[in-house]
Amino acid sequence: MKILVANIGSTSFKYRLFDMADESQLVRGGIERIGSAESPCFVEIGGRRREHSLHVADQAEAVRQCLAQLTDPDSGCLNEASEISAIGFKAVHGGRTGGVQRVTPEVLDAMEEVIPVAPAHNPPYIAAMRQLSEQLPEIPLVAAFETDFHRTIPERNRYYAVPLQWAEEWLVRRHGFHGASHRYIATRTAELLGRDDLRIISCHLGGSSSLCAIRAGESAATSMGFSPQSGLPQNNRTGDFDPFALPLVMRQTGKSLEEVLGVLASESGLLGLSGVGGDIRDITEAAEAGNRRAQIALDVYTGAVRHYLGAYLVELGGPDVIVFTGGIGENRPALRATICENLETLGIVLDAEANASTSGEAKISTAESRTQVWVVPTNEELIVARQTVQLLEG
Amino acid sequence: MKILVANIGSTSFKYRLFDMADESQLVRGGIERIGSAESPCFVEIGGRRREHSLHVADQAEAVRQCLAQLTDPDSGCLNEASEISAIGFKAVHGGRTGGVQRVTPEVLDAMEEVIPVAPAHNPPYIAAMRQLSEQLPEIPLVAAFETDFHRTIPERNRYYAVPLQWAEEWLVRRHGFHGASHRYIATRTAELLGRDDLRIISCHLGGSSSLCAIRAGESAATSMGFSPQSGLPQNNRTGDFDPFALPLVMRQTGKSLEEVLGVLASESGLLGLSGVGGDIRDITEAAEAGNRRAQIALDVYTGAVRHYLGAYLVELGGPDVIVFTGGIGENRPALRATICENLETLGIVLDAEANASTSGEAKISTAESRTQVWVVPTNEELIVARQTVQLLEG
Repeated sequence: MKILVANIGSTSFKYRLFDMADESQLVRGGIERIGSAESPCFVEIGGRRREHSLHVADQAEAVRQCLAQLTDPDSGCLNEASEISAIGFKAVHGGRTGGVQRVTPEVLDAMEEVIPVAPAHNPPYIAAMRQLSEQLPEIPLVAAFETDFHRTIPERNRYYAVPLQWAEEWLVRRHGFHGASHRYIATRTAELLGRDDLRIISCHLGGSSSLCAIRAGESAATSMGFSPQSGLPQNNRTGDFDPFALPLVMRQTGKSLEEVLGVLASESGLLGLSGVGGDIRDITEAAEAGNRRAQIALDVYTGAVRHYLGAYLVELGGPDVIVFTGGIGENRPALRATICENLETLGIVLDAEANASTSGEAKISTAESRTQVWVVPTNEELIVARQTVQLLEG
Repeated sequence: MKILVANIGSTSFKYRLFDMADESQLVRGGIERIGSAESPCFVEIGGRRREHSLHVADQAEAVRQCLAQLTDPDSGCLNEASEISAIGFKAVHGGRTGGVQRVTPEVLDAMEEVIPVAPAHNPPYIAAMRQLSEQLPEIPLVAAFETDFHRTIPERNRYYAVPLQWAEEWLVRRHGFHGASHRYIATRTAELLGRDDLRIISCHLGGSSSLCAIRAGESAATSMGFSPQSGLPQNNRTGDFDPFALPLVMRQTGKSLEEVLGVLASESGLLGLSGVGGDIRDITEAAEAGNRRAQIALDVYTGAVRHYLGAYLVELGGPDVIVFTGGIGENRPALRATICENLETLGIVLDAEANASTSGEAKISTAESRTQVWVVPTNEELIVARQTVQLLEG
């Protein structure tokens, strides 16, 4: 059974094709800067990577390009698109729906209802899903929502202190996101350590970041709350923010509530603090060159990671493992070192050399560290592919 | 030098009179349920407590009653009000002003500007200050703002991840409150342990609650942020809340932004969750009788305290001392036990017997506990009296 998994950003379309007989990855590819004059594309089949660049106007065109790459006779990958048993989407927010669902008009309606909550995330998914259901009606589409893994979070970590009706009738509570990544880390870490009762803090740090406290494979708390704009600072989204500041900001800027929320969802986070962009590489470079705002952005980011790390140390009563994953978590040893600084008395001691030299899956704590610290590259798409198969097989 | 310190709530007026020659407390008194038919009043002079009840219409009448109590010939306390060198106010939010200030029309204006940020706190202070400056123009009034202690919080813990202009020009950042209480705990704990380099987590838990990470006497982080509605759940105020839920709540309730913020500031917190009130005693009783909502309120409250406790364990790299104070912190051993549950591997071990039987200042951790845990009754008024003297003496 071949499953295509789509991971869609506002201007990107990434995909992987799995053969689920052995969970092997047949192809991965991606298109970035959709809508700009030149969209860089890549496709990897076997060990071979090809890159090219062309104009891709929108998500519909991206989907067509993806299918063209997969059925290109040179690739030897698929004879025709219909060999794909299903397309699984790492979908973000399903509102009143959720879990793992066949994409239906009702599911799309539910996703549309919560666009104001996930303004950067839901629209490109909805667009791509609509286009695919029109163009390839014979291939089932499956939405695996990012909130699904967090259904196990207990009320004490799920509810805001607001009238209970808000939580229970209107679902104003912490939903959590990045579920596919945290679920992968839970599963993979249990395999690596040969134990299924682990207490894990999963640190997914990237363009979008969240921490998750995991107990025996189940989410017990996570940093993102009602919306993916809460929790840690993101590339251009705010993270935790006090709503009582909104009237002041509205007065100072002359903006409406909707417009100020728009700034919090697209001009804040690392971008808003640093002024040099939302990419940690650019910010680190600027900070090293003496840019004060870039240094503040890094300090606020690592400070917030340490805040939630501490909260989850207590939630888990001292974890067995801390795992770093995601673009930043996997590739920025200096940030990992800052995050783990001065935690020796709490049982967390990085091995400086292992931390600096690691690539791929690796333990980066010392033998004396009571809590092990690992780097584990995430594989969100594999989780979505597995969930898609489970749904198809009922 | 005699200093009167006023601690003003929306329907209460509490005061203490200190002789600052030896920092002895000459009188304490209070009036509650101001504005209702019967306002219970008390006054304690020496060891003698008198209680009575009368109609007190507003803060002006409360001030008059206070001065009448102090100059009552029976009390032998003051011959006339003018013997008071100054009245110090445990004022909450000074907006663009702050620190410790003589109350001037400019200071009152600055306090008025931030009424939307501190809607429960600033109005009664402003009312009492205005009335006292009219009625007793000869007595200096001093505002010691609750934010003052937190001026030392570093940028990483102070800034939200929003456009930097918001923080630096409009002061949209974490101000922190309960400064007098956390400062008292810092000072008193240093005395008790004979060390001024302590890393302390001060847990002020009461009708209003916050945690503070203190390093060598200075605030390094605190749970209340831009407004006193953020951080931990309060009796009827929300604590941390995701602003992206506001449009949904506005739609569901038909309320304006201002009205929804009003609900977050007065019908949320423990009251909103439990439905039985904002007093921890009533909520505990209801939970023990099987009330599900009351149990959720307790769980969310202790969960939030543990969240910030963990964050500050990491901030301080494992603290020397955790101190419980405030009405709940001093008097609810069962809640202290829940908060410290399962933290042995992080170096925190309560002594169950000491925790259950303590009154007054006491250590409640075992000898093996790497972090000491103490109960220390707070004395916010003494801090305000000291700050008032310092200001008067320039």
